[in-house]
Amino acid sequence: MRKIELAALPGDGVGIEVVESAKDVLHTLADAHGGVEFSFTTFPWSCDYYVEHGEMMPKDAMNTLKQFEALFLGAVGNPALVPDHISLWGMLIKIRREFELSVNVRPAKRMKGIASPLANPKDFDFVVVRENSEGEYSEVGGRIHQGENEVAIQNAVFTRRATEKVLRYAFQLAEKRNSRLVSATKSNGIVHSMPFWDEVTKAVATEYPHVNVQSNHIDALAAFFVTKPSEFDVVVASNLFGDILTDVGSAIMGSIGIAPSANINLEGRYPSMFEPVHGSAPDIAGKGLANPIGQIWTAKMMLDHFGYDELGQTLLDAIEDVTESGIKTRDIGGTSTTKEVTEAIKSSILQ
Amino acid sequence: MRKIELAALPGDGVGIEVVESAKDVLHTLADAHGGVEFSFTTFPWSCDYYVEHGEMMPKDAMNTLKQFEALFLGAVGNPALVPDHISLWGMLIKIRREFELSVNVRPAKRMKGIASPLANPKDFDFVVVRENSEGEYSEVGGRIHQGENEVAIQNAVFTRRATEKVLRYAFQLAEKRNSRLVSATKSNGIVHSMPFWDEVTKAVATEYPHVNVQSNHIDALAAFFVTKPSEFDVVVASNLFGDILTDVGSAIMGSIGIAPSANINLEGRYPSMFEPVHGSAPDIAGKGLANPIGQIWTAKMMLDHFGYDELGQTLLDAIEDVTESGIKTRDIGGTSTTKEVTEAIKSSILQ
Ligand SMILES: CC(C)[C@H](C(=O)O)[C@@H](O)C(=O)O
Ligand SMILES: CC(C)[C@H](C(=O)O)[C@@H](O)C(=O)O
Repeated sequence: MRKIELAALPGDGVGIEVVESAKDVLHTLADAHGGVEFSFTTFPWSCDYYVEHGEMMPKDAMNTLKQFEALFLGAVGNPALVPDHISLWGMLIKIRREFELSVNVRPAKRMKGIASPLANPKDFDFVVVRENSEGEYSEVGGRIHQGENEVAIQNAVFTRRATEKVLRYAFQLAEKRNSRLVSATKSNGIVHSMPFWDEVTKAVATEYPHVNVQSNHIDALAAFFVTKPSEFDVVVASNLFGDILTDVGSAIMGSIGIAPSANINLEGRYPSMFEPVHGSAPDIAGKGLANPIGQIWTAKMMLDHFGYDELGQTLLDAIEDVTESGIKTRDIGGTSTTKEVTEAIKSSILQ
Repeated sequence: MRKIELAALPGDGVGIEVVESAKDVLHTLADAHGGVEFSFTTFPWSCDYYVEHGEMMPKDAMNTLKQFEALFLGAVGNPALVPDHISLWGMLIKIRREFELSVNVRPAKRMKGIASPLANPKDFDFVVVRENSEGEYSEVGGRIHQGENEVAIQNAVFTRRATEKVLRYAFQLAEKRNSRLVSATKSNGIVHSMPFWDEVTKAVATEYPHVNVQSNHIDALAAFFVTKPSEFDVVVASNLFGDILTDVGSAIMGSIGIAPSANINLEGRYPSMFEPVHGSAPDIAGKGLANPIGQIWTAKMMLDHFGYDELGQTLLDAIEDVTESGIKTRDIGGTSTTKEVTEAIKSSILQ
């Protein structure tokens, strides 16, 4: 029996509800399967925690988390309590950076029983690989002058090391899939970082001669996600562009409430972190209405990460079983509660 | 009889065809109406011009253009001949900046007879107001170190002057429309420029107490354009965010081939520039297949700019007459040529 030690970080808002659901489902799956056990230790770090302690996580949090094999995060943020940049840079982005979670893998695919807002979506099934540690998200910058003369400078920092890393990961993923890679750029408008990104793309491409790689400007690419999503296989993007593209990806899937993600430490030096794409959704938090599918699908990505691909597939099948049968939360056109969807997925697993 | 002196800059690819169409339509409209005449002087500045002369435009181009009341531009760029950043920064972006075309106004609305890729688009009709002179598009930055240690730095520069300008324009437009403004931000990830943008938004908002203003992160906002476009009225965004949003806006309209834009010099010190959102589309250039509607709708924005709102409305009605009747280019599901659509719009005007 393998026992996998996981840190649960439910965070804020609906994060608390959906992490509970996904843990429940994972336990059911492991029990039914045998041979593996998931042991969760839960940490209450969140905006509520900040209000009490003046920090999102205790000083030794990163040391504590480092002991685990993976982190299972819900959602961080409650702007009514703590400004977003403080909560996020104090927890979500902090973990992404300090644990060198260099890539953020975010699949988008058409799911059975979930209506896409697109009239004719065909079957799309692609993965966005997002740089997750640098780029446009940066604390480098500042301001000069005051009043009408004030100027704010924001530095985006692109290192060859991190850029190569995310590109190699994307090329390798494309090799395992359909060997088609699209790289998001904007070198016509953003003339330092993006031509650099393009150059590194070209250089890394020579290592993967069988992958067909093509660059699209981010504006056109975001539009293509709407007009021809079925043409994509793997898409690789900078931190900001990946952020935008994956929300559009979630939108065409039918709801941001179902989209999963994996933040991967490629070297295995630190635990990887698994979190859904959605946020804490303060408006529906605590009402039992949140869609648990994003978090449960995220658990599937964690299973894949640990080599339990078959279990992962069982889980994804169970999700689609349930959505197909019409047991759905409100965001995807149903009337079911978080609990009802969770129970239905558990039942499907046990069938 | 008022005679308006315009510089035509067809540029590259389909730009040449659609500017010809739109000029033709404008002449027909002015003749039919009486009282106004549009006089075009055409300049051949383009990537072809670059190949011959080593520059996109002659040294005194800006002085020449300054004499005109407005510029009517097709599209710039032909990456097979000239790298994009050279062609664009040598012409399109150069004009936007040197003529202080501080705002780029880009409407998105559901058009009669044009299918949206959205299953249930309702009627949407909104305007994106894009900052057009600074921000993420900047020549400030560079590189340090080589090989595996190389780092590229890209500076985004946000001045209070330019930020206030675009925001005031957006608030004023919202006041004239339905008093609802959404400001695109990403202050949770981009912690210098975007909090600055948010602060200026808040400060300018106090001058327009009747406008309901709300901030959305760019990732969510791009997704909302897909999931609930009918909820938007005026959206204000930075240079990059406006670029991305307006391509998604074009996508939900049914084709980037129909989307118009106006680059406005607010002080009236320089000529404003009118150009469609689409590019030069080298793949279909010269084949008579380009959709002229983006350029013709752009002419409508130019008419509005000169106070000929009624003529502008006539033109928009004629466009919708024709799309509704099924005379459409391929990008919007028809089989007609550029010429056929142009002639049909002229006929509709003359009816
Ligand atoms: C061609 C490119 C530089 C330009 C931009 O990004 O501004 C275009 O995409 C646009 O939207 O006008
Ligand atoms: C909350 C925010 C900082 C975060 C991001 O932009 O990375 C989120 O949008 C995401 O996609 O994970």
